[in-house]
Amino acid sequence: MFQLDPRLQKDCIVIGDFPLCRLLLMNDATYPWFILVPRRENSREIHRLSDADQQQLWRESAQLAQWMEQAFAFEKLNVAALGNVVSQLHLHHVGRSPSDPCWPGPVWGQRPPVAYTAAVSEKIVRQARSELAGVLKKSS
Amino acid sequence: MFQLDPRLQKDCIVIGDFPLCRLLLMNDATYPWFILVPRRENSREIHRLSDADQQQLWRESAQLAQWMEQAFAFEKLNVAALGNVVSQLHLHHVGRSPSDPCWPGPVWGQRPPVAYTAAVSEKIVRQARSELAGVLKKSS
Repeated sequence: MFQLDPRLQKDCIVIGDFPLCRLLLMNDATYPWFILVPRRENSREIHRLSDADQQQLWRESAQLAQWMEQAFAFEKLNVAALGNVVSQLHLHHVGRSPSDPCWPGPVWGQRPPVAYTAAVSEKIVRQARSELAGVLKKSS
Repeated sequence: MFQLDPRLQKDCIVIGDFPLCRLLLMNDATYPWFILVPRRENSREIHRLSDADQQQLWRESAQLAQWMEQAFAFEKLNVAALGNVVSQLHLHHVGRSPSDPCWPGPVWGQRPPVAYTAAVSEKIVRQARSELAGVLKKSS
């Protein structure tokens, strides 16, 4: 049975479920930063998912990316599956700007996260659930 | 017309062409590190490629990843489209190991690359062309 990795659970806020992936908001107000986690047990590498799951993962990634572009201002989207620390397969989507503190370097492992206030994270979660309602599962 | 970004040209060795992407070997012997560059003009973001190109990109990414797993020893594959420095869309595939000098951090912008000797890079290029012959274009 799929269970979200405890580190992702601790670092992120759950928004809801796409058909394949759980959608998380990284609790770091420095960047618009969302994570897709395929709800598959013991998945570590994209290319070991089934072909159908790979296609669905990339469909959900594109849907998330398109929404992020409308909802936030950024210059470049960083899309990455690393997993050196948390091995459970998860796909980062980070909106990057020349004014952000790590530009143009990568964001991972560079700076401690700046937690959202509850009001701001709740607003982002509400907005995501509303604007992605057509693609997120109804139960979420 | 597609032209490879000069920085990628300088930092990498061209192996050949998949149906969509140019396949590059990053000239850094620290890691097995390959890059896919969709041969599309002015492409910057994955989700702005056509649906067909996106599907083909991920197919080629999975084929490359499967080959890398057979050809090299590593613990975790890092797959990432960043593009903060080189905006031309390019997809990194980096084989990571707990013994590598940046583990578990990301590889980008951390250490100067360690260039391959010609003998070693030529061996890798030959091996890639031979073992990926079924999926690389014949002209390459």
